[in-house]
Amino acid sequence: MTNSAGEFALIEWIRQRAATHANQAVGIGIGDDAAALRLSPSAEMLVTVDVLLEGVHFKMPPATPVEVGRKALAVNLSDIAAMAGQPVAAVVGIACPRDGGIDLPRELHEGMQTLADEFKVAIVGGDTNIWDGPLVVSVTLFGEATGSGPVRRDSARPGDWIMTTGSFGGSLAGQHFTFQPRLLEALALHRETSLHAMLDVSDGLAADLHHILDESHVGAILQADEIPISEAARLINDGRTPLEHALGDGEDFELLFTVSPEEGRQLLGTDTLGTPISHIGEIIDGSGCRLVHGDGSETNLPRLGWEHGFAETDSG
Amino acid sequence: MTNSAGEFALIEWIRQRAATHANQAVGIGIGDDAAALRLSPSAEMLVTVDVLLEGVHFKMPPATPVEVGRKALAVNLSDIAAMAGQPVAAVVGIACPRDGGIDLPRELHEGMQTLADEFKVAIVGGDTNIWDGPLVVSVTLFGEATGSGPVRRDSARPGDWIMTTGSFGGSLAGQHFTFQPRLLEALALHRETSLHAMLDVSDGLAADLHHILDESHVGAILQADEIPISEAARLINDGRTPLEHALGDGEDFELLFTVSPEEGRQLLGTDTLGTPISHIGEIIDGSGCRLVHGDGSETNLPRLGWEHGFAETDSG
Repeated sequence: MTNSAGEFALIEWIRQRAATHANQAVGIGIGDDAAALRLSPSAEMLVTVDVLLEGVHFKMPPATPVEVGRKALAVNLSDIAAMAGQPVAAVVGIACPRDGGIDLPRELHEGMQTLADEFKVAIVGGDTNIWDGPLVVSVTLFGEATGSGPVRRDSARPGDWIMTTGSFGGSLAGQHFTFQPRLLEALALHRETSLHAMLDVSDGLAADLHHILDESHVGAILQADEIPISEAARLINDGRTPLEHALGDGEDFELLFTVSPEEGRQLLGTDTLGTPISHIGEIIDGSGCRLVHGDGSETNLPRLGWEHGFAETDSG
Repeated sequence: MTNSAGEFALIEWIRQRAATHANQAVGIGIGDDAAALRLSPSAEMLVTVDVLLEGVHFKMPPATPVEVGRKALAVNLSDIAAMAGQPVAAVVGIACPRDGGIDLPRELHEGMQTLADEFKVAIVGGDTNIWDGPLVVSVTLFGEATGSGPVRRDSARPGDWIMTTGSFGGSLAGQHFTFQPRLLEALALHRETSLHAMLDVSDGLAADLHHILDESHVGAILQADEIPISEAARLINDGRTPLEHALGDGEDFELLFTVSPEEGRQLLGTDTLGTPISHIGEIIDGSGCRLVHGDGSETNLPRLGWEHGFAETDSG
């Protein structure tokens, strides 16, 4: 595409930095019409894209350009983790507000590169623009499937245990910029056990569980008392319960997965991941999701867990 | 990422349409955390990204959403052509203005899908958002290198003929929405001849020639009378000459390439491409580019061909 002189200078800066961070998969990096990558011949290629929009996904301030850059890559890493994939390289499309100054794209890149280094991701191309609109960061990340192949959403089976990493709720209090994509955990799970279905929780635990149920044509029972609730969710004082926050907030970027009960029991008994895991329910025949409370009462779990007052619409 | 209910409905619509356009490379298409592709095990993967911004790259109207969608894919196809690659699949990040209505993303997709079908590109994933900003369309396209591998910008050699497809200038009069990416031409050239350096002309013939010269550490002599000038450039009446338009306008999306004189002569003598090709100059030792006019006078060709009055800065 057409580039202005200022954009050329910025591209050159990014190119020089990227060159020192390239990995052996990079045949041609930034600077040609397209990048060229050498991927493993035997693995399926995974690809995911996420767009972060100023005013929609973040406000700046309080978010810093470094945080926004980091998150733009992190959400994509979380998507590759959700397939139990190994990330390899990324390309980045950016539209920078004209009044953001030359430091804005550099700081964005800084935040992205730090996380890229951590997970050995090469930034191999991009399209950087200056405009009069708000900040837009679009990252496309490529990876390779591992082990027996990508773990899908549509393969949960009746009888499966429903399990998660980490805890849920309250991420908007700040953790949604600093979360650690569960890549190592996903790769370890895919090695150690036979994952049936998996995704990363971005829309919210309730909404994303429904994605698995819909795609797999099954139902579920969740145990309310077993759902791991984050400290942040417990500290929010807005009239909604910590459980409602855990089910509805979203942007937790934890793994939600199903395995056979035997393998689930084994996972609970070992510390394979170095990250807490929880058994929160079971997959059943049918559709939809019932939430069983500590007193034995049951409610339907709405698709968007945060619908006000769901705990009162007892259908048990 | 987090999606609203309206976005889910739109994604479902795109997903259903995409399913009927998938090709055999698609292992997992739209609907999971990432798409999975099976690429040729022996070919390098090519990847390119371009962002089109409302108010920067197009105004709407006069551009229609169908035209914008088509162009967002076309500019990427042109980049893959520039590497002599075979396109395979694309992912699409979109930010739609809230007041654009539900038809806007559908029409964008329509324009993109028509061109995708023509070149057998599967649209395998995306991130569609509604916001209060202008329209943003970010397309990432993957392809496979062909033949002896990707054709780079940095391999022009002294003595090479400088050649182009098609004609130049005046694309902003309309052709920049309807141009045909030179994919078939690039693949034919890569099969029939030994391409040294190649790119697609987006920044302008002068600017993009300088990219080849800079990357290859060589200079060039261009013959002004041999540069193919488009009808559109001849019709513009704004005080700049048709030649200035041809050298500076950009967005021609024609191929600019270098080959040995022997192969260049052979190409001119056959009609391999079905598209006109021209021999416009030679690569020489040194740096920069001299433009030789019909009267024998010489000027330096500025990096941005459109700099006013370059024809008068005679350095010959």
